[in-house]
Amino acid sequence: MSNFESIQRYATPIPLALRWSDQDLNVHVNNARILTLMEEARIRVTQKWANTMPDVSGPKRLVRAVNANFDQEVLYGPDTVVWVWVSRIGNSSFVLSHLLAQDGVACVYSEATMVVVDGTTGKTIPHDETHRAALELQLGPAYTR
Amino acid sequence: MSNFESIQRYATPIPLALRWSDQDLNVHVNNARILTLMEEARIRVTQKWANTMPDVSGPKRLVRAVNANFDQEVLYGPDTVVWVWVSRIGNSSFVLSHLLAQDGVACVYSEATMVVVDGTTGKTIPHDETHRAALELQLGPAYTR
Amino acid sequence: MSNFESIQRYATPIPLALRWSDQDLNVHVNNARILTLMEEARIRVTQKWANTMPDVSGPKRLVRAVNANFDQEVLYGPDTVVWVWVSRIGNSSFVLSHLLAQDGVACVYSEATMVVVDGTTGKTIPHDETHRAALELQLGPAYTR
Amino acid sequence: MSNFESIQRYATPIPLALRWSDQDLNVHVNNARILTLMEEARIRVTQKWANTMPDVSGPKRLVRAVNANFDQEVLYGPDTVVWVWVSRIGNSSFVLSHLLAQDGVACVYSEATMVVVDGTTGKTIPHDETHRAALELQLGPAYTR
Repeated sequence: MSNFESIQRYATPIPLALRWSDQDLNVHVNNARILTLMEEARIRVTQKWANTMPDVSGPKRLVRAVNANFDQEVLYGPDTVVWVWVSRIGNSSFVLSHLLAQDGVACVYSEATMVVVDGTTGKTIPHDETHRAALELQLGPAYTR
Repeated sequence: MSNFESIQRYATPIPLALRWSDQDLNVHVNNARILTLMEEARIRVTQKWANTMPDVSGPKRLVRAVNANFDQEVLYGPDTVVWVWVSRIGNSSFVLSHLLAQDGVACVYSEATMVVVDGTTGKTIPHDETHRAALELQLGPAYTR
Repeated sequence: MSNFESIQRYATPIPLALRWSDQDLNVHVNNARILTLMEEARIRVTQKWANTMPDVSGPKRLVRAVNANFDQEVLYGPDTVVWVWVSRIGNSSFVLSHLLAQDGVACVYSEATMVVVDGTTGKTIPHDETHRAALELQLGPAYTR
Repeated sequence: MSNFESIQRYATPIPLALRWSDQDLNVHVNNARILTLMEEARIRVTQKWANTMPDVSGPKRLVRAVNANFDQEVLYGPDTVVWVWVSRIGNSSFVLSHLLAQDGVACVYSEATMVVVDGTTGKTIPHDETHRAALELQLGPAYTR
């Protein structure tokens, strides 16, 4: 049983406009391109979260790992929304969850493990209390089909 | 301890030419674009494996899931090779492993879970003996750092 | 003197959503990517024109030539609209004009020379009267700064 | 009559590796993507020309205008080479010509009008004698079919 409905209570929806060029020869949106769409949602959600969580997930944050499950084909045409939330908080990392839905149907679920790295030393920075509190505001369980 | 050296005994190397446009604002090759590079290696390895495994991993095969660990930045400039092999064989799926190395240093490890789907029914097709035997020729342990 | 204002009387506006990944190392939208945005506007305008001009400029039409003038940098952030119209009608070709504006300021002007080719013979097809009449509905002078 | 043969006497060949993902739904390399390939050739030629012409055509140079003629489909598979040369030198601009050939057949010809802009004032910089002399080393007539 899916928890897509409950996710919509704590995740932030980011509507995206797909492009004809997002499709590949298989006449659906290409898998790697879907991760670019997730990236775009991740960057845009930062602006929505900015008052409580400045710079949490911008392009300056590093993606250390990513995974994605392609349950349904993503097509050029239908309304597309990516729901974004925080699904895990570690000492110096956190997981951003992204659920892409088309016409209200969950299609692709992806998690990105993010780390914040000091610009000069290149070392991972542990969350301070402010950052952790901000992350917790967006926290919710991961997606399970 | 890494098993990169032993991987080179059973994996197939695919040299890739990166492009300036593969970089993003962070002056490294973008994460989603790296998965496009893995895709390219996956498609090219098919031609190398074709005599023993026709159509095993071409663009017609569906990617059901993918994961990737970005251990080192990928840059525009250094020699780039993606090592590809089969790391798991299921009843109707298999896992293709990809290890991207630059100047001989492992940078990104990615697994793609592939399924073969019947073109008309859309249902997953279990491996027959020929296909399974062909997959086993490319089989080897997954990458561990 | 620009004719951007008069263009808005006969051209069709297509709003586009830019992506962080459209930028290149120069921190602006990449030139080649701008042509992908023009392509997207060209494809979407087809749907708007469809009742009077089915299939006039879809992806099945061939682009024989293209030119573009990059007068102003295109940035990730501002509102982006591409104005599309027909600026020339030949015997078997026509020119689609695209003017990309950000926050109301013209940035890039591009023309695409389109031909319609017979799917089986591969030969260029002259416009019939219906197609020519449909093209003329969208006709207007080219952009000049 | 083509002057492709004579071009090969003064232009610099840049071999490129195409990708499966360069193709669009029409099963050929997408037009806008071809301009990315031209960009890649333009950037790589800089390194080859570097001893006589440092920084002549790198990504820091601005593309003010571009045009392209798509005479033949570009496909994923055949050997691909882009020939690059200087076809015109203005007071503060120059034109880089690019001719993409597959298996020795000319497919796409593109010109990029380049300007060099002062990083701080943002104004166009006229060529000095050294730069003009370096550009002249790569000078040759434009491509005509």
